[in-house]
Amino acid sequence: MTAEVHRGLEGIVVTESELSRVDGEAGRLIYRGYPIETLAEETSFEEVLSLLWNGELPDDDGLAALESDLVGARSLDDDVSKLVTRLARVDEIPMAALRTAISALSSTDAGADSFEPTDEAEVLETGRRITAKVPTILAHFHRVRSGEDPIPPRDDLGHAENFLYMLDGAEPDPVSTNTLDTALVLHADHGINASTFSAMVTASTLSDVYSAVTSAIGTLAGPLHGGANQNVMRMLLELDESGMEPADWIREELDAGRRIPGFGHRVYEVKDPRAYILSEMSEELGEATGEPKWHEYSLAIEAAMAEETGIPPNVDFYSATTYYQLGIPLDLYTPIFAMSRVGGWVAHLREQYANNRIMRPRARYVGHEDREFTPLSDR
Amino acid sequence: MTAEVHRGLEGIVVTESELSRVDGEAGRLIYRGYPIETLAEETSFEEVLSLLWNGELPDDDGLAALESDLVGARSLDDDVSKLVTRLARVDEIPMAALRTAISALSSTDAGADSFEPTDEAEVLETGRRITAKVPTILAHFHRVRSGEDPIPPRDDLGHAENFLYMLDGAEPDPVSTNTLDTALVLHADHGINASTFSAMVTASTLSDVYSAVTSAIGTLAGPLHGGANQNVMRMLLELDESGMEPADWIREELDAGRRIPGFGHRVYEVKDPRAYILSEMSEELGEATGEPKWHEYSLAIEAAMAEETGIPPNVDFYSATTYYQLGIPLDLYTPIFAMSRVGGWVAHLREQYANNRIMRPRARYVGHEDREFTPLSDR
Repeated sequence: MTAEVHRGLEGIVVTESELSRVDGEAGRLIYRGYPIETLAEETSFEEVLSLLWNGELPDDDGLAALESDLVGARSLDDDVSKLVTRLARVDEIPMAALRTAISALSSTDAGADSFEPTDEAEVLETGRRITAKVPTILAHFHRVRSGEDPIPPRDDLGHAENFLYMLDGAEPDPVSTNTLDTALVLHADHGINASTFSAMVTASTLSDVYSAVTSAIGTLAGPLHGGANQNVMRMLLELDESGMEPADWIREELDAGRRIPGFGHRVYEVKDPRAYILSEMSEELGEATGEPKWHEYSLAIEAAMAEETGIPPNVDFYSATTYYQLGIPLDLYTPIFAMSRVGGWVAHLREQYANNRIMRPRARYVGHEDREFTPLSDR
Repeated sequence: MTAEVHRGLEGIVVTESELSRVDGEAGRLIYRGYPIETLAEETSFEEVLSLLWNGELPDDDGLAALESDLVGARSLDDDVSKLVTRLARVDEIPMAALRTAISALSSTDAGADSFEPTDEAEVLETGRRITAKVPTILAHFHRVRSGEDPIPPRDDLGHAENFLYMLDGAEPDPVSTNTLDTALVLHADHGINASTFSAMVTASTLSDVYSAVTSAIGTLAGPLHGGANQNVMRMLLELDESGMEPADWIREELDAGRRIPGFGHRVYEVKDPRAYILSEMSEELGEATGEPKWHEYSLAIEAAMAEETGIPPNVDFYSATTYYQLGIPLDLYTPIFAMSRVGGWVAHLREQYANNRIMRPRARYVGHEDREFTPLSDR
């Protein structure tokens, strides 16, 4: 076999999709025809879920119906609630806790045993159920590991606002709510990224939505994907600790051969359009709190990286300081990415099930061909 | 973008591998240079694990060391044990229970937080830990859902024998032990199948071994992959119930447009080499128990399928009657596939981490391009 080895599947087109287009040359991202800048400015995360799942931005009634479905599915069944408590008490890694909790959700779904992949309504209903519970799982986990009681969801709050409320028990201010809501809009879909692809691979055997989303969470957890945003913030904290000028610090890091998180992207050749929006939010939060240094560090690092490497920042770079200034613990940044991207996963699953083929690529075999066998007694 | 859409990634070479070669034209399968027929006849599952993980068939000392490591890792920590009990009490789907339990294993591994993908010893150690616990999880689950107490593993029994012992509390006869052990050898690796690929996709973000194996289990569960073997047995039971001649029954099923499980394979153009070996075992078990009808049904269906469709049977077809005649419950067939294939997953993970590139293919965007935005109030 002399076929080319497509490591990482770069440039391989694996499906057709109506969901999002990532134009890496122009630095442009659209969801179903709408530019990400408009959606970030004008719509809520729930409207974007409706757009991705149903194809259209909802009217008042459609939005109210979706919001009501999500609110109704937020609570955790007793078994899952206890499981999350136990995972928190042993201080499990948050993304691992989320993976286990989402996997366990199938055990509280009486319909999971008779899953029909071509039943679009069932796929979307299961997707809504999972999407609704992710924030509850995360907040419950974080409260318990912090030695506090979990706070049940509130039916009168939106997705972003309710999450912040469940995290610390106080209603968040409107700036925080809007910032998180916009961050959720920005992260909801992004072509066939690794976690989305992972969900598609699992679904391609006609395995169910719980399995597929569980795979996606495990995939998003890696430092080359969702794990990058918390590593950006760790870097900024290290920089702060060092007392050095950001540009000098970055040059030292580059000289030491360290990989700088939050820069570069397989698809974007220019600056990630989501990074512009997050950068603005990060700046505004710095002004609002009177502590602009985190945003200033980011700007200085972006400039130094442009000069030294020419590599532009990606979505993870400015989401780090945004979440930090919202007071969110570092190791919840990647789970918040999951809280948003689950919307995209579910939409891609619907497409995959509707036009499925099992994902079975090949390896070029480069091992031994014919070896003589020696029985154990003679080895 | 006019690039070809590679749905299912058919024919796309995604990596180089030294692990197994599937020759679909000749109907030949080798693990690291040894034909599957020789390994099935001459080696234990533990020897095959050593071959896949370390590159060579072990000598006495090497085998004893691996066996001792596996035996030492068989028991479940208290939290995982309780989790499996709860999943059994709510009658979770076995593959879903296995997925959740394996995902939860990271919470009892103090090293999971500092995973180093390039540390081959760590990858293999985690892989051994998971491989050792899969049978314990499955047997514990099955005992509890059957209203019986779980049976702890026994240190003096091999992997296959101990599993059968934990399932029903009696030491199995040598024929049963050897049959299961051979089935485990046959299922341990098979190129870049969908579940193995799923593990590789998850690992490609440098996510950890627990995440990758959890993804693989969810992927194997689908009816187009591991789920097929139990569907074969359901079909045979339906046929038995019908009282019809197998050939007539199959023709009716084909006329009704039903998919016949256990036939056809993306890679094999001829009969799957593993099916020959399993067919022999199935025949011998029928003779031993004095109930040859299940094997006879299989032969008749294979002949009718050859005549009607020309499609040969795959590994799932004869594993069904083999497991049935061992007295294993239908819905544990796919979990037993996982109990074996986890060996291959771990070996492929080692290769993936050693030469990693994030898996990020593309979609051809076929959705709307530029849509005019209407605010919610005007929709």
